[in-house]
Amino acid sequence: MTDFVAACRRAIGAQHVLTEEADTAPYLLDRRGRFTGAACAVVRPASTEEVAAIVRLCNEFDVPIVPQGGNTGLVLGGIPDRSGKAVVLSLQRMECIRAIDTVNNTMTVEAGCILQRVQQTAADARRLFPLSLAAEGSCTIGGNLSSNAGGTAVLRYGNSRELCLGLEVVTPQGEIWNGLRGLRKDNTGYDLRDLYIGAEGTLGIITAAVLKLFPQPKAQRTALAALHSPADALRLLTLVQRQCDATLTGFELMSGFCLELVVRHFPQTPLPFNTPYPYYALLELSDHESEMHAAELLDAAIDQAHEQGIVHDAVTAHSLAQSQQLWALRERIPLAQAAEGRNVKHDISLPISRIADFIDATGSELQQSYPGLRPVIFGHLGDGNLHYNIAQPASESDTWLLPHQDAITRIVHDSVHRFDGSISAEHGLGSMKRDEILRYKSPVEMKLMRTIKQALDPRNLMNPGKVV
Amino acid sequence: MTDFVAACRRAIGAQHVLTEEADTAPYLLDRRGRFTGAACAVVRPASTEEVAAIVRLCNEFDVPIVPQGGNTGLVLGGIPDRSGKAVVLSLQRMECIRAIDTVNNTMTVEAGCILQRVQQTAADARRLFPLSLAAEGSCTIGGNLSSNAGGTAVLRYGNSRELCLGLEVVTPQGEIWNGLRGLRKDNTGYDLRDLYIGAEGTLGIITAAVLKLFPQPKAQRTALAALHSPADALRLLTLVQRQCDATLTGFELMSGFCLELVVRHFPQTPLPFNTPYPYYALLELSDHESEMHAAELLDAAIDQAHEQGIVHDAVTAHSLAQSQQLWALRERIPLAQAAEGRNVKHDISLPISRIADFIDATGSELQQSYPGLRPVIFGHLGDGNLHYNIAQPASESDTWLLPHQDAITRIVHDSVHRFDGSISAEHGLGSMKRDEILRYKSPVEMKLMRTIKQALDPRNLMNPGKVV
Repeated sequence: MTDFVAACRRAIGAQHVLTEEADTAPYLLDRRGRFTGAACAVVRPASTEEVAAIVRLCNEFDVPIVPQGGNTGLVLGGIPDRSGKAVVLSLQRMECIRAIDTVNNTMTVEAGCILQRVQQTAADARRLFPLSLAAEGSCTIGGNLSSNAGGTAVLRYGNSRELCLGLEVVTPQGEIWNGLRGLRKDNTGYDLRDLYIGAEGTLGIITAAVLKLFPQPKAQRTALAALHSPADALRLLTLVQRQCDATLTGFELMSGFCLELVVRHFPQTPLPFNTPYPYYALLELSDHESEMHAAELLDAAIDQAHEQGIVHDAVTAHSLAQSQQLWALRERIPLAQAAEGRNVKHDISLPISRIADFIDATGSELQQSYPGLRPVIFGHLGDGNLHYNIAQPASESDTWLLPHQDAITRIVHDSVHRFDGSISAEHGLGSMKRDEILRYKSPVEMKLMRTIKQALDPRNLMNPGKVV
Repeated sequence: MTDFVAACRRAIGAQHVLTEEADTAPYLLDRRGRFTGAACAVVRPASTEEVAAIVRLCNEFDVPIVPQGGNTGLVLGGIPDRSGKAVVLSLQRMECIRAIDTVNNTMTVEAGCILQRVQQTAADARRLFPLSLAAEGSCTIGGNLSSNAGGTAVLRYGNSRELCLGLEVVTPQGEIWNGLRGLRKDNTGYDLRDLYIGAEGTLGIITAAVLKLFPQPKAQRTALAALHSPADALRLLTLVQRQCDATLTGFELMSGFCLELVVRHFPQTPLPFNTPYPYYALLELSDHESEMHAAELLDAAIDQAHEQGIVHDAVTAHSLAQSQQLWALRERIPLAQAAEGRNVKHDISLPISRIADFIDATGSELQQSYPGLRPVIFGHLGDGNLHYNIAQPASESDTWLLPHQDAITRIVHDSVHRFDGSISAEHGLGSMKRDEILRYKSPVEMKLMRTIKQALDPRNLMNPGKVV
């Protein structure tokens, strides 16, 4: 192993090969603090050629590779196991924005670019890069693509997959595939790009990407609607989509209990209604005409929903500050939940039409097994993506959850499966859900995935123990 | 071979296994009449299980399989070679619309459904399935997906790839993969769906798909703008996209020579301007508010382009009939070209920002080698997709082209490659461009593609001789 480390030092410079515990610790610790891995070294190459050189050394010395971006993943996809055999390959020094093309509406960036910087660079050129998520200040675009990150603008702009036109990848053999195309149409063979996107670094290392840009909206408008049920939220979604089409860029569902928690732990964020309601929807329009047009469009849709008895009360933001206040209700849910204590988290997706029935059926099933259990339901309803979290019964302390969490997850995931949903909507599988998925994927699908893995990475050096 | 045919007859019924020349001929003839293949039989299974049964028989008897939809492909992707060893597997009897879900905005259809029927079924449910192309009356959705078809609405809605959420596929071993998910987010492993889409039947047979639906627009508005150059067309595109965003659903470029041909061969379609211009752009807005809103939006954009000296003249359609008249100018280009005689066709794409320079550079190069050659340039400028066709010099008859066509294509494709474009934007590779692509794809990319093919179809039974 010392030979391998020495060879890495020669390849990319000694100062970029970390082996001291104090230096490597941040790369080995899961961001949520649930797990610490071990590695023979953390290497920080600065170029695609250096990444390829390291991968070739890993082949020579038979060293497994764990690619890592901003280390903000939620499923242990970028953390090595505890054997200490693997090397962590951090892409953080590959942070060059290689090109921006405002006519083609594309930007070519290296994998280690922080998402927020990508957004800002686009904005400086009067363009929108729409990917947006909680970790945007520290996650990297390479990690976003490797995990096919979702976020809050998927309804209008799609997941990371839909925001990428081309990739540069270092293969498990240390070769460089230059697929950095900025084309909207290209039917010349197999879609390698989409195979690497979402593969969580198990098929190769994404080193650069061509991203799609969009015209910046001229105005944004936010509203909070009070609802009686998830079924009404679905009716509202259909109505607003029909009237506003692509202008609707956000549609978030929140249960009454979510906002009860937010108001309890963040008294500076009051509920803008006199009485609480069972459910709320947060709507956002992004308009390319004017503030006034956005306001008219949103008001008309909400008025109509009011008349049809779908919406019982609603507030619309009349300023950026008011809009941020409404979004704060949504964004503070995870923090409020953490302040309340432990909870069991699930990142699930469902056919949108089945969400209301799923919430009913799963809630009943959980209550039957664990009377008093409190679901904390929120998420991107427009994409069918729920964060379906579970808090202990009000009468118990949160340690009550510990012995029950696996059984609770089993009930939730089995129900997701019955409703034709997915047990990982936007977080990936990593090593955390790698066994769990075997319960739900067909043997045919698992075999296809393993066949591809075996063909592209026959020595199983790329992020072993993750995904498949 | 008679054993194989007999086994097929037992598996799916004798009347669905065609061997008489009169019966098989339509399946063996390329739609443009350039090639006739041979097959031991044409089989027409009616269900996924029957498709799987046939594929298992092909494995048993070592018979290559050529899947076929509506046989409207342009690159010989669905026609067998002349050896007569292969079986043509037609999906035409698999034409069930399995489900439609207007809340999830999805439709589950079998591969043999004609595209126009899919569009109509969506429209009957007040939804839009936006894929639209010249062959829509006879092409099938399975073929559209296998070739990742593009068409006229890509600018707003994407290629076939972006319009599909899930697939059902029969593998080369005759197993059935049920990936018929109707989910907007699902990060549970490798993206098998996008691997089969665009693979032209070389990795498996798509038997059914979950398609995305959209709200129907309330109004459409069409305009024709007269321009001096492709560079001005790009300026117009940027301006209209900034003001109209997703409302802009079509942006077609046409050279003056294209419309000269249309007017010559279709005198009933006059040019709506007093003088001809070097270039034209056809714009289409699809609006979810009202006719009036669409008109205001389009007029404002064109007025502004006028003021900036980008647009020199423009007409806007004030009725459906007028709109169809404008679209007829675009749609009749291929027919007018055919009436004028032979031509050398190229289906190319480029980064949008490089199109003007590409047209200049390629035109000069062609003129240098072949003075008087007449490019017929039109296409989906908003997607960077040009149909860059070539007619003989005006002084020659069209047989002049025959000895020169390969050299002309070489100049065009080499230029496309220099400008970072693709030599097949929306038609695929088939067997026609299978060798051509070797000039332009890197050895690394070809190796990756062959590795995947070899892994998933080790016996090379699936559409051999196509793509890789």
